[in-house]
Amino acid sequence: MPEPMPDLPEPAHHELDSMLSRKFGKEVANYFSGSPLNRVSFLRTDHPFLSLALKHPSTSFLLFNNLNPLIVSSTKLAFASFKDVEPIIGEDIYSKSEEDLIKEYNSSKYIPQLVFLGLDDRNQDGLVYKDYYKGAPYFALDITPKDPIKSAAETLISSLETKGVSFSKGRMHISLPPQEAAIYAESRHLLDWNARNPFCASCGHPTFSVNAGFKRICPPRDLASSMTNSSASPDRPPCATRTGISNLSFPRTDPTVIMAVVSADGQKILLGRQKRWPEYWYSTLAGFLEPAESVEEAVRREVWEESGIHLGRVVIHSTQPWPYPANLMIGAIGQAIPGGEEIHLGHDAELEDAKWFPTDEVREALQIGTSGLGETAGPQYKEGGLRLPPRTAIANQLMSAVVGGFLGAEPKI
Amino acid sequence: MPEPMPDLPEPAHHELDSMLSRKFGKEVANYFSGSPLNRVSFLRTDHPFLSLALKHPSTSFLLFNNLNPLIVSSTKLAFASFKDVEPIIGEDIYSKSEEDLIKEYNSSKYIPQLVFLGLDDRNQDGLVYKDYYKGAPYFALDITPKDPIKSAAETLISSLETKGVSFSKGRMHISLPPQEAAIYAESRHLLDWNARNPFCASCGHPTFSVNAGFKRICPPRDLASSMTNSSASPDRPPCATRTGISNLSFPRTDPTVIMAVVSADGQKILLGRQKRWPEYWYSTLAGFLEPAESVEEAVRREVWEESGIHLGRVVIHSTQPWPYPANLMIGAIGQAIPGGEEIHLGHDAELEDAKWFPTDEVREALQIGTSGLGETAGPQYKEGGLRLPPRTAIANQLMSAVVGGFLGAEPKI
Ligand SMILES: [Zn+2]
Ligand SMILES: [Zn+2]
Repeated sequence: MPEPMPDLPEPAHHELDSMLSRKFGKEVANYFSGSPLNRVSFLRTDHPFLSLALKHPSTSFLLFNNLNPLIVSSTKLAFASFKDVEPIIGEDIYSKSEEDLIKEYNSSKYIPQLVFLGLDDRNQDGLVYKDYYKGAPYFALDITPKDPIKSAAETLISSLETKGVSFSKGRMHISLPPQEAAIYAESRHLLDWNARNPFCASCGHPTFSVNAGFKRICPPRDLASSMTNSSASPDRPPCATRTGISNLSFPRTDPTVIMAVVSADGQKILLGRQKRWPEYWYSTLAGFLEPAESVEEAVRREVWEESGIHLGRVVIHSTQPWPYPANLMIGAIGQAIPGGEEIHLGHDAELEDAKWFPTDEVREALQIGTSGLGETAGPQYKEGGLRLPPRTAIANQLMSAVVGGFLGAEPKI
Repeated sequence: MPEPMPDLPEPAHHELDSMLSRKFGKEVANYFSGSPLNRVSFLRTDHPFLSLALKHPSTSFLLFNNLNPLIVSSTKLAFASFKDVEPIIGEDIYSKSEEDLIKEYNSSKYIPQLVFLGLDDRNQDGLVYKDYYKGAPYFALDITPKDPIKSAAETLISSLETKGVSFSKGRMHISLPPQEAAIYAESRHLLDWNARNPFCASCGHPTFSVNAGFKRICPPRDLASSMTNSSASPDRPPCATRTGISNLSFPRTDPTVIMAVVSADGQKILLGRQKRWPEYWYSTLAGFLEPAESVEEAVRREVWEESGIHLGRVVIHSTQPWPYPANLMIGAIGQAIPGGEEIHLGHDAELEDAKWFPTDEVREALQIGTSGLGETAGPQYKEGGLRLPPRTAIANQLMSAVVGGFLGAEPKI
């Protein structure tokens, strides 16, 4: 299976340093984590709360067009107000309870996808709900122009463009500061999941977004069926997702493993490359965790399948959300067993090459050879030298941990 | 959302000790991990290999009826041979390539679900493929009696019953040794995922099992449509899952977090209980990781939402596959910040109670108060004392790590 790709450009260094220093103990907070929002997940079914949040003066809407966010520039998100989006979503999409909306469910009606992201409690002018929940609400909204919102969306987009903001041209073209990156990641992951799952995998009928964008259910009735044929019953056949809690109704996150592999003597690091990468560019191996594997087992399996190397000790280092489209990257460091270091690329055809690099060469490349995949390496880089992913990639953090002596420390797990 | 439940009975102690000592470094191998099988995932599309594996004399089939495995007793799986299952799956389900099978796809034909689990290379009489891949093959097969396999399945089940084996009566009734538990977990997770996803979430049409049970695709043509109406085209409308690699085609695994929470001074452990649990029974908090969260963020959010406690440092301890139906449990240990220890159950209504327990009380309960949820506590247990989950539960391993001084060690991450 394809690897999660470390191909976001590197943010400005002062931003990154502040991200990496937000540590508790020695925790590494990887890019896309570190959200400033309190998700108050238990309020997602509280429609009076959602109504209040929707229309509060402190509320921000992050708009998306075909999964691309509205931006001021490649390093800054743009946000819209309720007044901006009201022509698209109407006066109050949360005026009714979920129960009532499910009774009126009509699969032929298009409702633009709205997601409640959370409250930013650093904002003193935010809402206050039940004395306890405070902050400025954030929502994500898909305004991709299509019927019936096409004309309202195009009008809004034109008006935003006159203010100098526009939709990004793809994920290679944004390089957000860490906290904005986390808000963007939550938005993109949820909008993508909703867009990707319009039908029920259990019975094949259309699904309906509830829980402020965090759940899709398979309603028992659909008024659309009686619209085309007035004698048709709106009742649908039974569906397994209705008889209990089903994971099919909830957002999917795919656990992946990514690992820096060191030789038995600790002096070399194994790196691999895919054919489509720039010349001299290598990274750590990675792959999807499979059903009924522990993280350590997945790491050992992937490394053996892709490179033929046999691992002994495996230690989890840190984790990174990755919203392309829905990954949790679990970063680990593994050590080859003596005699298990011979490279064999013949099992799986995934890598073009895999090689042992001396730790010193990797240390130097981390200094002078890092960049985003589409970018050129820095000014000190010399043609022919090893190139590596940027500091926003967990692959970089794992290699940095190895050259910094991570495995030499007393093992904790 | 509901918590993953630590409710498997405890295996015999000699088995568990051998499981827990299979360590690399200080890794803890939790129950359901530790599979003896090499999955050789890259051979799942190699139909000559699968044919060979299917019919090899060393091959074992783990049979399921409504997701319950065939067992000799509650502590031993039973396996069938190719000859046993041939009347159900036919002579060679892998005689054709996937490409050819997709061309002949007919959604009205029921094919019993078969999953290739891997090779056990400890078996010297196993197959040898391309000189390199060796071992006894294992498959999982769903023989739930329904048309058109109903009569063949019932005949096989009767014949197996005369040999003294039968299907388990539910997951509370099996207590397998660790390596069998891992084979069972892989089987159950994959059979459940296939059974749960008969339709494409992207377009609503029926899906087709490929990659030896590890992938479901949405074929471009379905001969069933021309069967009912001979002038109907077998071509289906376009589907997004066909234009690139989609996670919808691959098995789903839901990352969950489960955490032992210690007080700022390290002297107390926070435990919670659900209403339906036996009296005096408590466990660690747990919940699903959400989109775009790191593990540490998910741990802090869940603990605050369920108990009101604010966590600082969070360290990942170990992981556990959990096949009910599809979880990866990521075990962590977190420490409350000074001043953040007040319990508030009002956010989320999930727990009936949450309480700080002195570390010594938890240490004693780990000695005398553990058992499966449906079992009685051991002979030394005194009514009214704290009851805890068994050693097969990662919750138990996390509490054991805390009372053993895990957080006192130099933090690695
Ligand atoms: Zn359904
Ligand atoms: Zn489809």
